Amino acid sequence: QVLKKVIKIPNYLLFFSSIFLVVGASWLIVILEEETFHTFFDGFWWVMTTVTTVGYGDLYPVTIAGRWLALFLYVIGIGLIGVVIGKIIDGLAIYRKKRQEGD
Amino acid sequence: QVLKKVIKIPNYLLFFSSIFLVVGASWLIVILEEETFHTFFDGFWWVMTTVTTVGYGDLYPVTIAGRWLALFLYVIGIGLIGVVIGKIIDGLAIYRKKRQEGD
Amino acid sequence: QVLKKVIKIPNYLLFFSSIFLVVGASWLIVILEEETFHTFFDGFWWVMTTVTTVGYGDLYPVTIAGRWLALFLYVIGIGLIGVVIGKIIDGLAIYRKKRQEGD
Amino acid sequence: QVLKKVIKIPNYLLFFSSIFLVVGASWLIVILEEETFHTFFDGFWWVMTTVTTVGYGDLYPVTIAGRWLALFLYVIGIGLIGVVIGKIIDGLAIYRKKRQEGD
Ligand SMILES: [K+]
Ligand SMILES: [K+]
Repeated sequence: QVLKKVIKIPNYLLFFSSIFLVVGASWLIVILEEETFHTFFDGFWWVMTTVTTVGYGDLYPVTIAGRWLALFLYVIGIGLIGVVIGKIIDGLAIYRKKRQEGD
Repeated sequence: QVLKKVIKIPNYLLFFSSIFLVVGASWLIVILEEETFHTFFDGFWWVMTTVTTVGYGDLYPVTIAGRWLALFLYVIGIGLIGVVIGKIIDGLAIYRKKRQEGD
Repeated sequence: QVLKKVIKIPNYLLFFSSIFLVVGASWLIVILEEETFHTFFDGFWWVMTTVTTVGYGDLYPVTIAGRWLALFLYVIGIGLIGVVIGKIIDGLAIYRKKRQEGD
Repeated sequence: QVLKKVIKIPNYLLFFSSIFLVVGASWLIVILEEETFHTFFDGFWWVMTTVTTVGYGDLYPVTIAGRWLALFLYVIGIGLIGVVIGKIIDGLAIYRKKRQEGD
């Protein structure tokens, strides 16, 4: 099952790949739509606003390439939340089992 | 219980019905509000922005028919997230049971 | 524990109180800010957009009274999602127990 | 495990630190960007709209300092939702265990 493998991903790997994705997307959107996103910080601000699904609407892509990057970020953002929830549930189960076995 | 039946839905069916819904809604919104949504890709961009609850506000329906389609998408989007969480919890329980029984 | 009581709330009660809240808030916002929200459907559209946290930003309250209503809707929306997740987890646990005991 | 310690946080501490964070951030954004956020209530309205990820886009920071505060709020908001889900799952497990042991 794919779920088993996803839950087994170490936390540090999840942390560093998230940072890599955010930095990469921030850099890519500035290249793709430099007319809308002037600086790397503009890109970073937009990526974080998108991944957390806040979406103020002060910055958003208008080209097809930029929109595809946003769509990719939506899926990544929701996927990450799923993985984190999975890890919380799994961690709680392990912790409860230990509490039952002894203390 | 309805929950039992929902969790039993195979993953491939969930995947294809999601794609069908997104494509169908993208096509429908262009028909319903062609003054706001010029192309199928505009519709698709709006549907994905809505279902993931990002909601930039660059595109939104203004007619009653278009708004009802959006309201339907809200419920679908939240329902799908509920089903996915249910599947994660169920999958984790089965995986833990197998780990306990042997390995 | 308050959690126990919340999970015990029957589904039909949850359903009807949600509808009551949405209709009540839609009607109240039109009264509070008739300059922004012209019709009941405008109010309903805004309430649903807020409770689902999509938040397009086409309509939002500008008065203090209207903003307090929105703040109340935020808390209700997130609370409802918590209750639904609680019900899914509880329902899955009961279903698994039944599956273990016989089938 | 860090999860164990987070779940052990008493509810009243979680409640008061949330209020402290919201009030502190509301006050800080007015100081950082007084041209956008005129009153404390404006700041409070923006903080709540951000933490709940509604994000209407009527108010958003434009300076680097204000944006960093927003980024901090995103992480806090999502972290809090994770803790609340963890507490619901843990509370349900304790409640089920008690129900099994006697009633
Ligand atoms: K949003
Ligand atoms: K938004």
